[in-house]
Amino acid sequence: MTDKNLQKKQAAEAALQYIKPNMIVGLGTGSTVSYFLEALAKADINIVGVTTSQVTSQHCAELNIPIVDIDEVDHIDVTIDGADEVDTYLNGIKGGGAALLMEKIVAKNSNENIWIVDESKVHATLGSFPLPIEVIPYGNGQLFRQFTDRGFFPKLRRQANGDPLVTDAGHYIIDCHLNNINNPYALAEYLEGQVGVVEHGLFLNICDRVIIGGETVTIKERQKTNTEQV
Amino acid sequence: MTDKNLQKKQAAEAALQYIKPNMIVGLGTGSTVSYFLEALAKADINIVGVTTSQVTSQHCAELNIPIVDIDEVDHIDVTIDGADEVDTYLNGIKGGGAALLMEKIVAKNSNENIWIVDESKVHATLGSFPLPIEVIPYGNGQLFRQFTDRGFFPKLRRQANGDPLVTDAGHYIIDCHLNNINNPYALAEYLEGQVGVVEHGLFLNICDRVIIGGETVTIKERQKTNTEQV
Repeated sequence: MTDKNLQKKQAAEAALQYIKPNMIVGLGTGSTVSYFLEALAKADINIVGVTTSQVTSQHCAELNIPIVDIDEVDHIDVTIDGADEVDTYLNGIKGGGAALLMEKIVAKNSNENIWIVDESKVHATLGSFPLPIEVIPYGNGQLFRQFTDRGFFPKLRRQANGDPLVTDAGHYIIDCHLNNINNPYALAEYLEGQVGVVEHGLFLNICDRVIIGGETVTIKERQKTNTEQV
Repeated sequence: MTDKNLQKKQAAEAALQYIKPNMIVGLGTGSTVSYFLEALAKADINIVGVTTSQVTSQHCAELNIPIVDIDEVDHIDVTIDGADEVDTYLNGIKGGGAALLMEKIVAKNSNENIWIVDESKVHATLGSFPLPIEVIPYGNGQLFRQFTDRGFFPKLRRQANGDPLVTDAGHYIIDCHLNNINNPYALAEYLEGQVGVVEHGLFLNICDRVIIGGETVTIKERQKTNTEQV
């Protein structure tokens, strides 16, 4: 196991302490979440999951973790998810696995959000990871042009065969190579006002706790009294 | 022909004066636009259309109006569309025909937007027409509950067979029976910030000119120097 994968596994296993019997647990998407699913199945805690992608639903089926549709529950107790990047305010970028839309829907309906990451995901400011923006296929070229004009260095995400990647919800993803996001709140507000943008990968004031695997596992909590970075 | 349909036809035919040869023309959706398409085909002006729905694309094919994909053009000269409701600021509600998303994408990429309506569509304030909100199917029940809590009187739009109506882009529509929208700008901003909301039927500061069919056709233009109603 590489050092990075070991860190992911450490973070995933440390997250188990927040899972209590009979909880409704949101289940993210990605390699770190896979380690969590395996640990969860092994721990044999009686929970029900709400998933954020077809990939995670399938993995749950293989591990016999029971899942329900998000609209069958009236709340989610806690969601465990990975992140592509997280800053010191516990804001982050997600969507490298193309599941940002459902991940954000589940996160917003969760009482608590815990991210599990390896050390390489932690940065002082966001933006070195390309920001995924989920868009309506119709007119995506117009948005792409607009992002280019704004200096976002956009790139349409494609499948191995060259066709545009299509998300679980039937949309495209434009990855914006921003390098350094000075004001994520302003950027989020701009993106939310754009017609054709379904959702973006900025997860602001969502994560309550981040678990960073490493030599020693580090747990950071968001200061809820001072959540606004602006 | 009913009086209402006569008014729609009058408005549609009056819109022809804004169509010049070689223009790229956005083509809306709905019964009033149907009259416009027929008038346009009859006038035999050499234009190319960009459509806002499968229904309109099909109607264009029947009338031999050439159309292109929105991403094949770098601008749209003028878009002719209907509206379900329009106020004195030329703000409106659209989406009764379930095409609001593509209509808004086309409108936002148009140099000029002209709405053609009958007199019954004109109101001092918006909201007597239920506001359509296009949402991601995943988690739509959570949004529905949120809208209920806010007193929006939401209703999921359904097909004749009882199944949820699915838009051209694969989403659902929740119609909110608001009755009276005091501050459409604040409502739009709230909706744009909600995860799972793809688009909403408030078209604010979009329409440049409205043509109202009636005893005499009335043309109103938006005061561009004073567009903000807030």
